Amino acid sequence: MGETVRFGVSMDRELLDLFDSIISSKGYSSRSEAIRDLIRGMIVEERWKTREGEMMGVLIVVYDHTQRELCSRLTREQHHHGDLILCTLHFHIDEMNCMETTVFRGRAEEIKKAADELSSLRGIKYSKFIFATTGKDLP
Amino acid sequence: MGETVRFGVSMDRELLDLFDSIISSKGYSSRSEAIRDLIRGMIVEERWKTREGEMMGVLIVVYDHTQRELCSRLTREQHHHGDLILCTLHFHIDEMNCMETTVFRGRAEEIKKAADELSSLRGIKYSKFIFATTGKDLP
Amino acid sequence: MGETVRFGVSMDRELLDLFDSIISSKGYSSRSEAIRDLIRGMIVEERWKTREGEMMGVLIVVYDHTQRELCSRLTREQHHHGDLILCTLHFHIDEMNCMETTVFRGRAEEIKKAADELSSLRGIKYSKFIFATTGKDLP
Amino acid sequence: MGETVRFGVSMDRELLDLFDSIISSKGYSSRSEAIRDLIRGMIVEERWKTREGEMMGVLIVVYDHTQRELCSRLTREQHHHGDLILCTLHFHIDEMNCMETTVFRGRAEEIKKAADELSSLRGIKYSKFIFATTGKDLP
Repeated sequence: MGETVRFGVSMDRELLDLFDSIISSKGYSSRSEAIRDLIRGMIVEERWKTREGEMMGVLIVVYDHTQRELCSRLTREQHHHGDLILCTLHFHIDEMNCMETTVFRGRAEEIKKAADELSSLRGIKYSKFIFATTGKDLP
Repeated sequence: MGETVRFGVSMDRELLDLFDSIISSKGYSSRSEAIRDLIRGMIVEERWKTREGEMMGVLIVVYDHTQRELCSRLTREQHHHGDLILCTLHFHIDEMNCMETTVFRGRAEEIKKAADELSSLRGIKYSKFIFATTGKDLP
Repeated sequence: MGETVRFGVSMDRELLDLFDSIISSKGYSSRSEAIRDLIRGMIVEERWKTREGEMMGVLIVVYDHTQRELCSRLTREQHHHGDLILCTLHFHIDEMNCMETTVFRGRAEEIKKAADELSSLRGIKYSKFIFATTGKDLP
Repeated sequence: MGETVRFGVSMDRELLDLFDSIISSKGYSSRSEAIRDLIRGMIVEERWKTREGEMMGVLIVVYDHTQRELCSRLTREQHHHGDLILCTLHFHIDEMNCMETTVFRGRAEEIKKAADELSSLRGIKYSKFIFATTGKDLP
């Protein structure tokens, strides 16, 4: 292990108090340790975005299908990226709310771009994109 | 085995020729045998429609999502029958064409009614509904 | 409209009685009419099996996942036909029973062969395969 | 806005260099700003884990189905949590590798517990769990 460095971080006390209470419940022994884990998670995500080779990805969106045209626009965009999208699984949560999981396979950069386009459609209540490996490069 | 009865069937020669060539390729030894199998299949389907207890069902529809409002109307109808529908899996076949499989769970009569409503939406190119068992009553 | 021909069909009276009661409830005016419809359905199915070009297909299976190895064997067979299979949607009906819908895309003959192999695995309680169009050749 | 506090964080220089290069490419103007965002993301995730009311969740796992019994064990565990799981969508990546997305609906605490059990099965190459809202409490 190389040289250890130290730097200062500033934030609102309210945010720090929330952070402290969470890391304490998670069993972290120091703020540094928790922040290092957050940074490592960020690095993994970031590496995947620029990764070569084939990747899988899952986009989760929650929306109100009665919103004018949202369902049609999502479907249109999904078909437009049809070469990257394996399928979309639609759950009918209640009369209005839907959750869709759309599964991607292809180059990381293209998947991310398509997922960003889909999740930026106006009217979507919640969206989250997750990369996953194809497993081919893992033992 | 009970009494065997015989009755006459009339049809267009062209239809009969097609039937004959299919049943010959399938290895049936007589038209009667093939027709009995078709009738048995019909009876099984019919029994499921009036069956008590919980059933599964799958509706397959193929449609052009660029058709005005079809995607939105399907989604609206599916949400309306949300208590019977587990989820809908959407495949983006090409820029225009979609295939959806919608999975139902519930009373046979209600499932069939909901599936009929969905598949009768104008603009659907192809639809097929299939009952399936929950497996609970089968050894 | 060509020449109309007439031929005789023989069956067990019990089977004929069931058939009569179903076609009466369906509103058919004659046995010939109902049998013609059954034959037309059979012709459509048969044509799909030998059809050129790309097809979609859906295999529904119901099985008891606690049956020794059935889940693993199904998964192994599905991966073996990975170039034809888009995905498999698995429903957990109860502690033991599952329903899976597996969606195929490819040449009719190859799809049918793969679906037949999957559905013939010992221990499956129910299986049904359905062809569907990609919609490309339909107005 | 309340009082701003400042505290020190220590880490390996290599980790800090990676962090700096990522936040620079993302356009952050300071480490503090990037760390605050990471902490806010952590808080949102944490809040969902302890949230009252109905939640949705998606578990993504990648595994080698030829690994002894892994497929059967996953299926068994999924059926065991059948009241929380809507369905599992299985993709056949290649002869060996699979990706599954399992969709949960229920109380956050129970969903998280079930997802943790599933993702801790030995032999899984990658797993990621994501909470999602039902959309009911969002405008």
